[in-house]
Amino acid sequence: MKNKERIAIVGAGSWGTALAIVLADNGHEVRLWMHNKDRVNEINERHTNSQYLPGIELPVNIIASDSLVQVLDGLDTVVLAVPTKAIREVLQSIKQIQKTPLTIVHVSKGIEPNTLMRISEMIKEELPEELCSDIVVLSGPSHAEEVSLRHPTTVTASSENMQAAERIQDIFMNQHFRVYTNTDVVGVEIGGALKNVIALAAGLSDGLGYGDNAKAALITRGLAEIARLGTKMGANPLTFSGLAGIGDLIVTCTSVHSRNWRAGNMLGKGQKLQDVLESMGMVVEGVRTTRAARQLSVKYDVEMPITEALYRILFEGQEPKAAVDELMARMKTNEMEDLVDIIDRRQGDK
Amino acid sequence: MKNKERIAIVGAGSWGTALAIVLADNGHEVRLWMHNKDRVNEINERHTNSQYLPGIELPVNIIASDSLVQVLDGLDTVVLAVPTKAIREVLQSIKQIQKTPLTIVHVSKGIEPNTLMRISEMIKEELPEELCSDIVVLSGPSHAEEVSLRHPTTVTASSENMQAAERIQDIFMNQHFRVYTNTDVVGVEIGGALKNVIALAAGLSDGLGYGDNAKAALITRGLAEIARLGTKMGANPLTFSGLAGIGDLIVTCTSVHSRNWRAGNMLGKGQKLQDVLESMGMVVEGVRTTRAARQLSVKYDVEMPITEALYRILFEGQEPKAAVDELMARMKTNEMEDLVDIIDRRQGDK
Repeated sequence: MKNKERIAIVGAGSWGTALAIVLADNGHEVRLWMHNKDRVNEINERHTNSQYLPGIELPVNIIASDSLVQVLDGLDTVVLAVPTKAIREVLQSIKQIQKTPLTIVHVSKGIEPNTLMRISEMIKEELPEELCSDIVVLSGPSHAEEVSLRHPTTVTASSENMQAAERIQDIFMNQHFRVYTNTDVVGVEIGGALKNVIALAAGLSDGLGYGDNAKAALITRGLAEIARLGTKMGANPLTFSGLAGIGDLIVTCTSVHSRNWRAGNMLGKGQKLQDVLESMGMVVEGVRTTRAARQLSVKYDVEMPITEALYRILFEGQEPKAAVDELMARMKTNEMEDLVDIIDRRQGDK
Repeated sequence: MKNKERIAIVGAGSWGTALAIVLADNGHEVRLWMHNKDRVNEINERHTNSQYLPGIELPVNIIASDSLVQVLDGLDTVVLAVPTKAIREVLQSIKQIQKTPLTIVHVSKGIEPNTLMRISEMIKEELPEELCSDIVVLSGPSHAEEVSLRHPTTVTASSENMQAAERIQDIFMNQHFRVYTNTDVVGVEIGGALKNVIALAAGLSDGLGYGDNAKAALITRGLAEIARLGTKMGANPLTFSGLAGIGDLIVTCTSVHSRNWRAGNMLGKGQKLQDVLESMGMVVEGVRTTRAARQLSVKYDVEMPITEALYRILFEGQEPKAAVDELMARMKTNEMEDLVDIIDRRQGDK
């Protein structure tokens, strides 16, 4: 039997709640923080989170609270499961309360616009070293709905400190939820963030009625542009061939559960961005990330044609069909050229 | 405008017919060979191939024939679009008729059991050099139904001779059908053949009700085992990150059009292999390829756990759920280990 730990999860959206189920299944004491008092009561009294995981019964060892002081009391591991744009605010609250070092696990997928920071960089900036012993990012092909149903799922726990990654692996691992370790935080964070951009593009292609061949081409070329950028930012190119790279990209681009795909799909069918975002009722990380990814492509001087096309559609009013057709027509004809570039650059760095 | 050529396509299944449409759209004279006299008449008189591409109107410049002598007369490019097990027989017929050198384009995806030959190796063995100037393999994410509907599609034309690949690129390329070139024939053939094994596994997982997370994990780990084997056979590992690798794998594992996925799905739902194969009415390449892939994994001493699990299910009667559960449980916990192995081996080769 595993060691029983007390673990806080900050954020009770679908993914935070699904991870609470995994930890509760493993026998840990799980404290789930959220703003919304009604939801706190629903979780503690009826053991459901009907807005984010409808139809799922939550284990009774998940205790909800809207008090961050109570939630953090006496524990050393916090899982951050809030949208990228809420990360700094949550960290500032933790900083005011916390006195002892924490292992911070984050499961968000985004890049901060303008600063172009990855989430672990934001955590390092907000929390002094004495409050943050380790940062671990958990990422991979993992729709919350399926995790809550105990369908088989595999993710990667990545940390600069392998021991921290292995501790988080041990806490989360069970029969249905398999956790792998890896030390390439840059690659895992870039893969996780940028897949949402490609998922928007894949949804758009589907919305235009272009079919599975076109979508597979977009995913393949999308992976290449993510890997080109990530490698230039210091990632190991192999990470993009793993669960947090192609694995997460596939599930996000092909599953009906993916909200980024759904948003792209509505855009492809002719809806306006503002209407799409309003009708979703949840954060669509890919829209903000497209802006950040385009800034990164300029900063690192990396060609990212899919990101560029999406940027023009989302923020410059280009008509989706024209943008996607142009994208298809302008791809390189020797597909190895830019892939080879990745490996050569890496070998040059050695 | 492109040069008009006369091109033969041998085999009028769904893929051969879809490629005939692409070539006919480009203005070439297309001669389509098949055994079945009724189908010849249907194509020439009604311009349909209702068994393989129901609902599609064929261009009038596709001329069908059951005479290989007529079809080959006076031309220098032949597209082989028959199942792997019919390749040798077709080549032997060509050898008896042909007097001048041909460029052979093949679009089949398989490995010959027992000899473990790739298709281009079979072609080299059957045709003397004076009858075969070049071999080009065309592969990528390309469901025939979508190609026949002129949905955007991208494929790779691969040949040891880049000029031959470029000539085939030029013949096939149009607004909807984008062709890339590459010289890694081994990688393209291995990627194309082995994706059918992983598609069976993905269908099986879906048939068991395991969901998108599990399927994405299988595809990701499947790509890794294909790349491990292919690299050991001499392929460029980057090919597996391209259209003929992950691109084709994605479309085959996630599309409702894929017959390998459908066969796996039926197996996952509890049907017997013999019943599945009978009900499909078309060749399911993945079943034969699983046997060949397992032989290759032994010959090259490469760990291929998904292929191994599928082999036990297909040919040794293991219960699908037990095999897939075992597979999930036994994967390595450090996912980079076997990926890194690929690159290190490649660097060592330099």
